[in-house]
Amino acid sequence: MNLLLLHPDELSTDGSPLRLEGRRFDHVRQVLRSAPGDLLRVGVLGGKLGQGRLITLGDDFLDLLLDPSRDPATGLDQESPLVLPWTLILALPRPKVLRRLISAIATLGIARIYLLHTYKVDKAYWQSPLLSKESLHQALLLGLEQAGATRLPELHLRNRFKPFAEDELPGLAADTTALVLHPGSSTPCPRAVEGPLIVAIGPEGGFLPYEIGKLEEAGLEAVSLGERILRVETVVPWALGRLM
Amino acid sequence: MNLLLLHPDELSTDGSPLRLEGRRFDHVRQVLRSAPGDLLRVGVLGGKLGQGRLITLGDDFLDLLLDPSRDPATGLDQESPLVLPWTLILALPRPKVLRRLISAIATLGIARIYLLHTYKVDKAYWQSPLLSKESLHQALLLGLEQAGATRLPELHLRNRFKPFAEDELPGLAADTTALVLHPGSSTPCPRAVEGPLIVAIGPEGGFLPYEIGKLEEAGLEAVSLGERILRVETVVPWALGRLM
Repeated sequence: MNLLLLHPDELSTDGSPLRLEGRRFDHVRQVLRSAPGDLLRVGVLGGKLGQGRLITLGDDFLDLLLDPSRDPATGLDQESPLVLPWTLILALPRPKVLRRLISAIATLGIARIYLLHTYKVDKAYWQSPLLSKESLHQALLLGLEQAGATRLPELHLRNRFKPFAEDELPGLAADTTALVLHPGSSTPCPRAVEGPLIVAIGPEGGFLPYEIGKLEEAGLEAVSLGERILRVETVVPWALGRLM
Repeated sequence: MNLLLLHPDELSTDGSPLRLEGRRFDHVRQVLRSAPGDLLRVGVLGGKLGQGRLITLGDDFLDLLLDPSRDPATGLDQESPLVLPWTLILALPRPKVLRRLISAIATLGIARIYLLHTYKVDKAYWQSPLLSKESLHQALLLGLEQAGATRLPELHLRNRFKPFAEDELPGLAADTTALVLHPGSSTPCPRAVEGPLIVAIGPEGGFLPYEIGKLEEAGLEAVSLGERILRVETVVPWALGRLM
């Protein structure tokens, strides 16, 4: 956690200190080992970054001052790191991998994630409690706290391939660099893409030829990253690093 | 496992089938669910790739034929994927992260890894059983089996920063693109580097200014990947993807 992330509703409107309990309190006491008087890095979800002054450290709460009129070192006046106007379409990975991967994607700063069903995705994955809205939201927050950023990616679940590929994807892919990673392609994956981008990454085992066909019909170009077979948690940051 | 990786000593010299037990047998039976007669992807550590024919599947062993004179579909005649002449210098991460990360690095195909002590690396990490030669070798093999490749990276442990930076690194960095990722730098990290490369990646918490100075003296250039703070398991593939 490189940032105490606050919900806009938690901000006080009268300049009074803000009270935090639970996970964020534990982190300040046990990991940062902060003492009253210390400045802490703070951000507001969807908003700005800055510093708060730790005023009180209780047994199970802390009070944080964020009011520059009372303490000029505090306040929220810095922009969050840039978010790229990019969309990642990812075949739903194993739930255990998914949690870590969703956090990692949130740290990298892209605008939109679609988790997609494909033939080689185990249908049981869609029933996992790790796919609950609350659990995915938590994984995204952990990613922002790690990155020191405040802007959440949009996250969409699509558990039917064909309606997504036929009805939704052509609109998303219009006027956009639109790619699907496919080891069978002879076109190398481009580098350093400017402007909006969509990139689709298949399950371990790959997309079916039928699925590649549907994605191509929707406007995606099949490109290859070479002959090595990578785990999804490796290929996602590796491909984004190459494309960025 | 996308490859049954064999040690050169396991190859028969008289064309007789080769017997496998243990982990590789379990994988063929339980994950691949192969039956006698099936062709399996095979590679020899440090050597070539090809196919073997599953001849017998016993209760705790399998026999594999690799002799093209007896079965033309079998044999080892394909080159392993390319390995880049690259060196990754990595501050030793938490042992639990290390294992996964070493496997991931092996899948990506670089020639050399140094695990380095720095000020912000917990000294206790060096005592972990996961750092034994056997355990690290196993993690590298898992990476090759995943990638479908046969060439192991060299892996070196350096538990003293200063002698490494002063005595060993200048030689490694000579006539090579040599970089250290450092958020404080105003030089952006280059893309698509050709030829030999060394890249150093610090611990979570970063290198000390003193350490950055030592690395620069050894010939490394400090470059930045932006203001987001990434976990080591994210930044390694992300940075390699950008540099490749």
